Amino acid sequence: VEDRVFDAAIELYNRAGWVGFNFEGVTRATGIGKAALYRRWPHRADLLADTLKARWLQVDDIDTGSLREDLLALAGVFLRLLTGPYGSVNMHMLMDTARYDEVRGATTDYRAGLVTAGRAIVRRAVTRGELPEGTSPTLIVDLVVGGIQNHVLSTPADLRPKMELQMYDYAQEMVDAVLLGTGATRAAPSA
Amino acid sequence: VEDRVFDAAIELYNRAGWVGFNFEGVTRATGIGKAALYRRWPHRADLLADTLKARWLQVDDIDTGSLREDLLALAGVFLRLLTGPYGSVNMHMLMDTARYDEVRGATTDYRAGLVTAGRAIVRRAVTRGELPEGTSPTLIVDLVVGGIQNHVLSTPADLRPKMELQMYDYAQEMVDAVLLGTGATRAAPSA
Repeated sequence: VEDRVFDAAIELYNRAGWVGFNFEGVTRATGIGKAALYRRWPHRADLLADTLKARWLQVDDIDTGSLREDLLALAGVFLRLLTGPYGSVNMHMLMDTARYDEVRGATTDYRAGLVTAGRAIVRRAVTRGELPEGTSPTLIVDLVVGGIQNHVLSTPADLRPKMELQMYDYAQEMVDAVLLGTGATRAAPSA
Repeated sequence: VEDRVFDAAIELYNRAGWVGFNFEGVTRATGIGKAALYRRWPHRADLLADTLKARWLQVDDIDTGSLREDLLALAGVFLRLLTGPYGSVNMHMLMDTARYDEVRGATTDYRAGLVTAGRAIVRRAVTRGELPEGTSPTLIVDLVVGGIQNHVLSTPADLRPKMELQMYDYAQEMVDAVLLGTGATRAAPSA
């Protein structure tokens, strides 16, 4: 049952954002009654938070032992999500967390988890000696995540298919530039 | 009269996006009759396009003679706009151009102008010998513009004031990493 609810909820949120995210829409799509939904999620913001956890960004399992591979995995997650069927969730979230206290409140843990996971990638690389001490995790995450987002979002519709064919190669080029620009060594030093 | 209309229109678009962008709202804010607005802009998408030209991103006058200064100027324009009173315009535009043919159509020239101006910054730097031949304009613009956007948009509300105090220093750090990562020489070679 939860899977059907999350499928419907992510589709609804992608299409309509917070202003159109409601139990009526989920009930219509799933046939599951509103009373049952309310029992499980007292507020629609709780449903949104659980839906994001279940169907949106998952980056806390990225830990390959190599900074380059970790950043490519991070870029890959964003590329897949932004070019997938729920590509607008990202922008709705950015806008809705800025505008609605209840969205910001309900998704605090989820968003903090993403930030923590991104920073952990950089911190582990510093520990392994792949990045200089004092490297800013913010800088590396902003460049990779922001660069990927801008790449997908600024591509006009008619160039989308071409962009999608090349996007994983492009992510390598981007990650390599970020590594070079932040003084990373390419491979972890042998233990 | 145009100035009053653009002021009201950018405020309305920032607040409501395309779904709430209409002549009624502009008339309410300015007292200028709908008939007069229609005479000047046959469709609300035309008003949006002219409003963006007059009140939103202006990057085609960036040409300092130095890649680093040009990229800092580009980053600065985005920082000012994203942290200013109309910081949501950017996200509305990204979402609305993806969703509404009439927005995409009316703003084609405006958006193409931004892309061209960004690429020109890189192309001039290649000509001056500041960047290797064959450097991808897309990569540099994605990293700087995307990195700045992600930095502003991912900062939680309570950390905003601190972020804004440091954002121009941060932009220097970011631009320097991008220059280093893309093989740029710091200064233009003497002629």
